Amino acid sequence: MSSVATAVPLTARDSAVSRRLRITPSMCGQTSLFAGQIGDWAWDTVSRLCGTDVLTATNASGAPTYLAFYYFRIRGTPALHPGALRFGDTLDVTSKAYNFGSESVLTVHRICKTAEGGAPEADAFGHEELYEQPQPGRIYAETFNRWITRSDGKSNESLIKSSPVGFQYAHLPLLPDEYSPRRAYGDARARGTFHDVDSAEYRLTVDRFPLRYAVDVIRDVNGVGLIYFASYFSMVDWAIWQLARHQGRSEQAFLSRVVLDQQLCFLGNAALDTTFDIDVQHWERVGGGEELFNVKMREGAQGRDIAVATVKVRFDAASEGGRRG
Amino acid sequence: MSSVATAVPLTARDSAVSRRLRITPSMCGQTSLFAGQIGDWAWDTVSRLCGTDVLTATNASGAPTYLAFYYFRIRGTPALHPGALRFGDTLDVTSKAYNFGSESVLTVHRICKTAEGGAPEADAFGHEELYEQPQPGRIYAETFNRWITRSDGKSNESLIKSSPVGFQYAHLPLLPDEYSPRRAYGDARARGTFHDVDSAEYRLTVDRFPLRYAVDVIRDVNGVGLIYFASYFSMVDWAIWQLARHQGRSEQAFLSRVVLDQQLCFLGNAALDTTFDIDVQHWERVGGGEELFNVKMREGAQGRDIAVATVKVRFDAASEGGRRG
Repeated sequence: MSSVATAVPLTARDSAVSRRLRITPSMCGQTSLFAGQIGDWAWDTVSRLCGTDVLTATNASGAPTYLAFYYFRIRGTPALHPGALRFGDTLDVTSKAYNFGSESVLTVHRICKTAEGGAPEADAFGHEELYEQPQPGRIYAETFNRWITRSDGKSNESLIKSSPVGFQYAHLPLLPDEYSPRRAYGDARARGTFHDVDSAEYRLTVDRFPLRYAVDVIRDVNGVGLIYFASYFSMVDWAIWQLARHQGRSEQAFLSRVVLDQQLCFLGNAALDTTFDIDVQHWERVGGGEELFNVKMREGAQGRDIAVATVKVRFDAASEGGRRG
Repeated sequence: MSSVATAVPLTARDSAVSRRLRITPSMCGQTSLFAGQIGDWAWDTVSRLCGTDVLTATNASGAPTYLAFYYFRIRGTPALHPGALRFGDTLDVTSKAYNFGSESVLTVHRICKTAEGGAPEADAFGHEELYEQPQPGRIYAETFNRWITRSDGKSNESLIKSSPVGFQYAHLPLLPDEYSPRRAYGDARARGTFHDVDSAEYRLTVDRFPLRYAVDVIRDVNGVGLIYFASYFSMVDWAIWQLARHQGRSEQAFLSRVVLDQQLCFLGNAALDTTFDIDVQHWERVGGGEELFNVKMREGAQGRDIAVATVKVRFDAASEGGRRG
């Protein structure tokens, strides 16, 4: 996965990247490990399509600038979901980038298991498939990122927008506005959940399950001393597991869950020596089946928003294939 | 990193693998993430050199067999150590495998930062460099693995030796016995530490700092439902951090530490719903400088051995280069 900056003008053809890879132990078994891979693919996709080496990008002042994750979604089905990935699986991943101006970029990822000896799926991957006709047997991920720079060189709490020199985006396709992730995370930010709480399809079963989480300097840090975005997936899973265990679920039942959808919005930055106040909510689909967990993370006496996540799970749908071994 | 089984007889030339790669966020910032990469390289090296696809290996009975980590060592210097790796760094990694018979294999890894526009370091990488003349500016890792199969198909506690069909090893070089990792881990197993406790160079400062650690179903599991070997590095770091914090170290001091050497031996398997009893010991070099932490992990009323780790750290040697950003 190497990428170099290019001086050649990019064109509309440069809007997709395909890769074939095998799942190794470092990529699966934990939501955060798989999300970390998707994050790497997002950065690599932008590096290849936008003429900017994301791993070493700097802004006009020469300061390092990071393509920070603001919104992250992963969808699956019982036929293929993150918890069903095993080392040795071969995947075909197609990633596309969309034009969101100079300060942001949306990348979307279609993840399929490769049939034995099979060729990559040759059909174009458009937003119609992603948003209107998702296929079973495929995982879809969306990553919406913004360029940020530490405003004072040290603190993690004050990060400012900062696009790198040479970031090309005008050639990327525009996403029809009705699909914009800004709608989803804007609503989630305002309401504290991605779930439509007025929906008659779901019944609220737990209104508030409060937790405290101390940020972990061992497991929550990335290579530049910020909280690693993928660690938020571990925190969200931890919060859901606390409630699921309280509800009487076993470790094995939890590990066998099928996660159908997880949406996570990163609303604020935090120092490493802090503790988050977490509230978990839970809904059940009327008639059984899917369950929804909402995880709200806040910090400090003012309750500054840190993250909101909504996760749709089935505990009753055995993963097709099951755990190897 | 794809590998296919081969029917072609392998020769002594097939004893090394070189790779160039860039560090991404999923590979650095946490000992476990970097150790997970080294683990992937170890499996890939054996796959390429031994005619066996480690990711999907099965034994003669058709049961999945895993190349389990038994002993793991990572050495660095202030010039290059795991905590100094930043995303965007380009690395040249040379890995070699040594013949330890049909049931085990040792892989060793030399990790160098690539100079800008530089070619891979062309010199052969022999055991003399690894054991007698390690170079500053290089990280060295050793991974000793054994083939195991779950004896009853489900439990993690009873794992049996089980070499896969087609595993070729006779062409691999033999390591002179004085360097065998069996000496190091044999001593550590017997004494509960890799440190020579009779050494006059170090002074014992904390004889026993007891902790309890509940295995985490979110962060300690791999893709086949076993405890992920790389998570033990997080547990060891966590135990060391508990003592270091007790000694008055700050988060920043801890994150800025230079880990010069870490040796970890995996002595027993455990279920996911268990709690480990951990004892941490601490020595200081007489005259200052290096500090040693020893972490012993046991389980249950009988104190069954789970793991032993010894970690050599400097808190006073600023990492050359420092944290980017």
